[in-house]
Amino acid sequence: MNNEELTFESYMAAETAKVEAALARILPAGWDVPEELRAAMGYSLMAGGKRLRPLLVLAAAEALRGSKEAALPVACAIEMVHTYSLIHDDLPAMDNDDYRRGKLTNHKVYGEALAILAGDALLTHAFHAAAQAYRIHGVPAEQVLNIMDDLAVYAGACGMVGGQAADMLGEQGLTRLEDLQYIHTHKTSDLIVFSLLAGGRIAGANEKQLQALESFGYAIGLAFQIQDDILDVTGDEQKLGKPTNSDEKQQKVTYPFFIGLEASEARVRELTLEGKQVLLAADFPRPERLLQLADFLMRRDH
Amino acid sequence: MNNEELTFESYMAAETAKVEAALARILPAGWDVPEELRAAMGYSLMAGGKRLRPLLVLAAAEALRGSKEAALPVACAIEMVHTYSLIHDDLPAMDNDDYRRGKLTNHKVYGEALAILAGDALLTHAFHAAAQAYRIHGVPAEQVLNIMDDLAVYAGACGMVGGQAADMLGEQGLTRLEDLQYIHTHKTSDLIVFSLLAGGRIAGANEKQLQALESFGYAIGLAFQIQDDILDVTGDEQKLGKPTNSDEKQQKVTYPFFIGLEASEARVRELTLEGKQVLLAADFPRPERLLQLADFLMRRDH
Repeated sequence: MNNEELTFESYMAAETAKVEAALARILPAGWDVPEELRAAMGYSLMAGGKRLRPLLVLAAAEALRGSKEAALPVACAIEMVHTYSLIHDDLPAMDNDDYRRGKLTNHKVYGEALAILAGDALLTHAFHAAAQAYRIHGVPAEQVLNIMDDLAVYAGACGMVGGQAADMLGEQGLTRLEDLQYIHTHKTSDLIVFSLLAGGRIAGANEKQLQALESFGYAIGLAFQIQDDILDVTGDEQKLGKPTNSDEKQQKVTYPFFIGLEASEARVRELTLEGKQVLLAADFPRPERLLQLADFLMRRDH
Repeated sequence: MNNEELTFESYMAAETAKVEAALARILPAGWDVPEELRAAMGYSLMAGGKRLRPLLVLAAAEALRGSKEAALPVACAIEMVHTYSLIHDDLPAMDNDDYRRGKLTNHKVYGEALAILAGDALLTHAFHAAAQAYRIHGVPAEQVLNIMDDLAVYAGACGMVGGQAADMLGEQGLTRLEDLQYIHTHKTSDLIVFSLLAGGRIAGANEKQLQALESFGYAIGLAFQIQDDILDVTGDEQKLGKPTNSDEKQQKVTYPFFIGLEASEARVRELTLEGKQVLLAADFPRPERLLQLADFLMRRDH
């Protein structure tokens, strides 16, 4: 391990700890909410994971020398939206999964009805969390309103939910790479792009910078999802926390299915490079962490 | 029918038509969304109903001589949130209802998975709709941000979803009127209060006026829900579009169960009067429509 990697690892550990602490404060114990609902929300929200989206919010703010403190509520918001989508995806009517990250899924612990409501509540509460950037940290109302509006668009029918619906509707008959790319873009990349834009907006990014963040996001978002498809074929079950080849068993069509494993790996490298080049060509005072995150996502084994 | 009633009826018809037209524009045909998802969202959103919450948004704006045009996006937003809650409530894991307003429920037509996603998408899209008050109608960003934040709070775990969870968790063992009141307040009144506050904010209400709208909302909200409980015992099945005594059959505890039918009817009248008095005591230039709506809700037979 060289020094640079060590530095990045310490950075990641510190940022992740910040996010975990902020998330833990988001559903306070004294909250006037039915206790079982709060427990169901907290169970999935605090179940670990890479916290990738919050890290991207913070790194995008840092790229523009913005306040990471002010970006933290929005980092929590996007993680709540991501968590709700996992809870609903795991439901019997959807993917019907019993385990996620080695833990029982929400509905296996709290029952289906409460799992549906916990997801609804996390999604709704995300908008309240985002508003804190204005209320507590004094980010201008216009910027925070834009972030909340973006969240609605990138997480909604035109974004993540649309991707999820297309995935579900196409489960039997997906025959074109474009269709798979539509699903990947909306199911995965849209929230990644949102995270980068939100961090940028917190730091007062201009239009050109927002466009660069968007292009960077779509490039690394697709790379991330192709890498997911690859790991599903080649990965270590222990590290992934789920059986490999599960997509194949479920007859899910993936990137390697269309273009092969080697070409998929090349595509991940290309997309990551493309994304980094876009970022470097734009005027960011401190893009280092974003660039490192892009490499980290490409190299990850789970 | 006297003239005043005729006038109110024409007013209601005109306002409802405005809301229906705005809702119909919210999910445009050319929208880049999987068509079946859009259809599932539209099916429930355009399934009729009283449109009470949107009417309250518009009437609250009118009470302060605010722009009803500017209030319309928020009126649509609250109806989308109300609709999503009905779709999720009707799911097999929740109330397991096959019919609503005489039509098949969403999951009976589109399947459970798409019904869950259509609900998620409507909830998410509501925040985008609300943001239009700023983008298109120029309501100050601070006010619109407050409205979006309110929506997250009143519709979330502390609000509607919390009430729904309490209702579900208490289905077997509800023994105290306070518990029922908690459920009624959050499941029903919170969205009514939100609607009134949002209309007020659009029109630039001051703190005192917002407080009056809140008190008015909690009074007529509870009256509305008690009236629902009463109609469930005494109502005309045809008008209600559902079998009466259904709550009793499902062993749901209602207001008449605790204090009897007559006392429940008296309570509806008292609460309505209380709400109207609060409103009259505050400084509203044109409170007439809100007062008429309160009476209308008390007198309704479905």
